[in-house]
Amino acid sequence: MTQMNKQIIMKTRPVGMPILDNFEIKESPIPEIRHGEVLIKILWLSLDPYMRGRMSSAKSYAASLNEGDVIVGGAVGRVIETKSPDYDKDDIVEGFTLGWQEYAIANPSSIRKVDPSLAPIQTAVGVLGMPGMTAFFGLLHVGKPIPGDTVVVSAASGAVGQLVGQIAKIGGCKVVGIAGGKEKCTFLTDTLNFDAAIDYKNENIDEKLREYCPEGINVYFDNVGGKITDAVINQLANYARVAVCGVISQYNLTEPEPGLRTHRSMLTNQATTEGFLVFQFAQKYHIGMKRMARWIQEGKIKYKEDVVMGLENAPSAFIGLMNGKNFGKLLIKVAE
Amino acid sequence: MTQMNKQIIMKTRPVGMPILDNFEIKESPIPEIRHGEVLIKILWLSLDPYMRGRMSSAKSYAASLNEGDVIVGGAVGRVIETKSPDYDKDDIVEGFTLGWQEYAIANPSSIRKVDPSLAPIQTAVGVLGMPGMTAFFGLLHVGKPIPGDTVVVSAASGAVGQLVGQIAKIGGCKVVGIAGGKEKCTFLTDTLNFDAAIDYKNENIDEKLREYCPEGINVYFDNVGGKITDAVINQLANYARVAVCGVISQYNLTEPEPGLRTHRSMLTNQATTEGFLVFQFAQKYHIGMKRMARWIQEGKIKYKEDVVMGLENAPSAFIGLMNGKNFGKLLIKVAE
Repeated sequence: MTQMNKQIIMKTRPVGMPILDNFEIKESPIPEIRHGEVLIKILWLSLDPYMRGRMSSAKSYAASLNEGDVIVGGAVGRVIETKSPDYDKDDIVEGFTLGWQEYAIANPSSIRKVDPSLAPIQTAVGVLGMPGMTAFFGLLHVGKPIPGDTVVVSAASGAVGQLVGQIAKIGGCKVVGIAGGKEKCTFLTDTLNFDAAIDYKNENIDEKLREYCPEGINVYFDNVGGKITDAVINQLANYARVAVCGVISQYNLTEPEPGLRTHRSMLTNQATTEGFLVFQFAQKYHIGMKRMARWIQEGKIKYKEDVVMGLENAPSAFIGLMNGKNFGKLLIKVAE
Repeated sequence: MTQMNKQIIMKTRPVGMPILDNFEIKESPIPEIRHGEVLIKILWLSLDPYMRGRMSSAKSYAASLNEGDVIVGGAVGRVIETKSPDYDKDDIVEGFTLGWQEYAIANPSSIRKVDPSLAPIQTAVGVLGMPGMTAFFGLLHVGKPIPGDTVVVSAASGAVGQLVGQIAKIGGCKVVGIAGGKEKCTFLTDTLNFDAAIDYKNENIDEKLREYCPEGINVYFDNVGGKITDAVINQLANYARVAVCGVISQYNLTEPEPGLRTHRSMLTNQATTEGFLVFQFAQKYHIGMKRMARWIQEGKIKYKEDVVMGLENAPSAFIGLMNGKNFGKLLIKVAE
């Protein structure tokens, strides 16, 4: 009997905010794996904001999907068949392009082994994976905080934001998170020990930034862009560094949204804005992973996961992510 | 007989574009100089866009003027009386804060000697002074061009822009200047050997940038901000560096002008935007000056001056500068 594979494809390219109709579940037989390949049973999917870029045909760092393609994204799985000398059956692996499906065929060059004794395996797409490395290197190498700096992070309870704030605290900074809703803000201050949190849905961001950052903002780790970012840019300190990790507020616009021109603030403050992709730090991931793992063991880094059960719920969960409905790192549990 | 001094004061703070009524000529006797001071007869004034910031009460890197204050700005003059052991009568000096007046009293710490054998003395506020150092260090240390890069500079025929382009050419770059009007553009390509020039008043900037920068823009040296900058940001290459030197299009706005949000381009291109003030390179000026002087002698750097005669014409010349009417480094010749 041929094993069938359930896959979620991009039926139609989203225009603006994605809708359920843009996605479709498809079943097809799993092909034979070729020499050198492995067959992976997907256990966890990682849903990340950057994936919206893949669904667009505009220039982005993520390669564009075409209509009919399986949605590509990070995942953790178990090797169930192997024709590679480097992988054994039952190895746990993580890959950035495994995608929204029950089974994936992969080339060893596109996956890496995960050590299940280190931490729960889904952390391989979270705190010990791409989001963790994004927070670690984006904050430390792009934001370049020094002790005593005031660090502001947007989407602060998300997969990356929650880690950025905690790493900044370890580095002796004052940390202000911006998130949507009281529950998220309370989590930031009470559980993650952020110095302050601003609820952009219910509070005046300008006023609260003035209150919490009286000496200006030294480092801004931006996950959102848009009006929240405008407010932060207006309160930068001299020599501020803005690390642009994502602009989720802009991903679903059909027309560019005009906003604050930032060059005057950059000039007056001799400030720097730098966009980065985590891949530029690939040669150093091992350093970041070791430190993040140690900080977790020491209780210095906590992480919150938002787990949705079932592959078929990935599209609705992804749409929720685009709307800020997730609370913590968004994961789909596909199988045990 | 007490010697009288003619000074131009800021009578009223400009709102939006400065008008002649914001300025007033005043005469007053020159006070006795004190121990350690020198009395300088002003020969040349330097009119620079950043001076608009001084006339504003908003936060800026330049200290604000109050109504009734003499307009502060760079100038070159001759020492006519000295109570400083460091300066002799007839020394030629340059100071960044000497201001719009016939005579200035200065403390030696605020001036420097100019060697008249090196180049015409007014170059001490031009190619061998603040604008020259701004071009040299802003391009090379902030823009960080490498041979083969495509460098775009706005306000390209201005005091700084014309030098930026020529330094980039020395560094093996392709240079595209943006300026207003055919005459300026022809000067850039035919006299300064820029590879191309775009006349923003008569040409479509988007189209021309696509034509002249088919591989995208690696370095943008921004003197203007606003819509010209939006067009450039939309055509950045991966890893582009944007050096923000000035935003003259924004200085005279009474309300912030919304424009392109740049974070998406920064992110997608892993690009950097950095605002800078030349003063951060003060410890290295001697290096820049030596190289610029050599390049002038070698004929590799040319510079165009726009000389207006008479102190009393400084206000109208400054208003012209704000409107892009100058063609080259704007100087006021105050006396022989």
